[in-house]
Amino acid sequence: MRLRNVKNKKEIMDSSNYLILDYSKYKGKWNKYFGNNNPIDLEIGMGKGKFLYEMALNNPDVNYIGIEKFDSVVAMAIKKIPEGISNLVIIRMNADYIEDAFSKEIRNIYLNFSDPWPKKRWAKRRLTSNIFLNHYDKIFKGECTIIQKTDNKELFAYSLESLSTYGYKLHDISLDLHNDPEVLDNIETEFEERFSKNGPIYRLIATKE
Amino acid sequence: MRLRNVKNKKEIMDSSNYLILDYSKYKGKWNKYFGNNNPIDLEIGMGKGKFLYEMALNNPDVNYIGIEKFDSVVAMAIKKIPEGISNLVIIRMNADYIEDAFSKEIRNIYLNFSDPWPKKRWAKRRLTSNIFLNHYDKIFKGECTIIQKTDNKELFAYSLESLSTYGYKLHDISLDLHNDPEVLDNIETEFEERFSKNGPIYRLIATKE
Repeated sequence: MRLRNVKNKKEIMDSSNYLILDYSKYKGKWNKYFGNNNPIDLEIGMGKGKFLYEMALNNPDVNYIGIEKFDSVVAMAIKKIPEGISNLVIIRMNADYIEDAFSKEIRNIYLNFSDPWPKKRWAKRRLTSNIFLNHYDKIFKGECTIIQKTDNKELFAYSLESLSTYGYKLHDISLDLHNDPEVLDNIETEFEERFSKNGPIYRLIATKE
Repeated sequence: MRLRNVKNKKEIMDSSNYLILDYSKYKGKWNKYFGNNNPIDLEIGMGKGKFLYEMALNNPDVNYIGIEKFDSVVAMAIKKIPEGISNLVIIRMNADYIEDAFSKEIRNIYLNFSDPWPKKRWAKRRLTSNIFLNHYDKIFKGECTIIQKTDNKELFAYSLESLSTYGYKLHDISLDLHNDPEVLDNIETEFEERFSKNGPIYRLIATKE
């Protein structure tokens, strides 16, 4: 995502009820934080937050945590997300350190329009590289489920290869999500709304015992 | 493939050195038939044969067997394939009975622009359904390798799901083969030459121990 600086981002972040700064305190205890035993779904790279808060509003019986590494983007998300959603949390962190925040408590991981890191020497930084899949193993509660959407065909091909090689089974693949008659319930991200005119959106669901 | 009737197809087929009628006689003995110990690659649904004979001409140290179920298509292929290729065989048969012809002797299976069998109730007829993957298990020598090209996005998505669920790992996926800078050696089928202007060509390689 191209970054735009946000004025007063510190004030915006400090004033938000959604943003949790001392997240490591809740590692393994997020259900206690939410005060219920509902499943916890995680979006890595939540961007401006539209997908996260629409999912939270549509699914009140699921808890949603979004992580995002850039202060400016977090501040934009906070400005956009409606007040008073009790099943939504934001964490400003780099996904490299995801094991500091979670422990065997995540049901689904959503990866929406992640950075494709196009050069081969950057492949390990892609959120479906085996380095990250190894991190995810440590935070899933029970079966691992990753749901990815992207408009980047190289990232999508890479993910199919990396996930199947790691032992994931693939389901519900769409090679043109917005024109797929079987897909009725797609919630679009901001990026998706703006860029889906340029080519197909790809979607996969990957599961592993 | 749309079928066109071919006049004199019986005479054409009877006169060909490539077509093996009593194929079950060679089950488990194809290397003896070819008179060498070179690997044997199989194309299921060889259509008019261009891919098969170009591969055979380009790779003299590999034996190629094409199977095709329609007499008319087999006759067209025979008319097209240049004479005198020693590493090429054609079998007219339905892939359902592939175990009648082969036994633990195939290195690679090529599936090029296979019938997508679009309705859900036909899914088992697709050449990457678990019924066929189970047949293939019986004819591969050592590691299983399937190489598929198609222009049909639903068939491609189905194949990715079916193969990964069956235990195959995916490699060398291209979501737009003809515009993929990493792909330099694609041999086009007749179908591919005619129809690739309509949309992307998809390609996968799947391997299983």
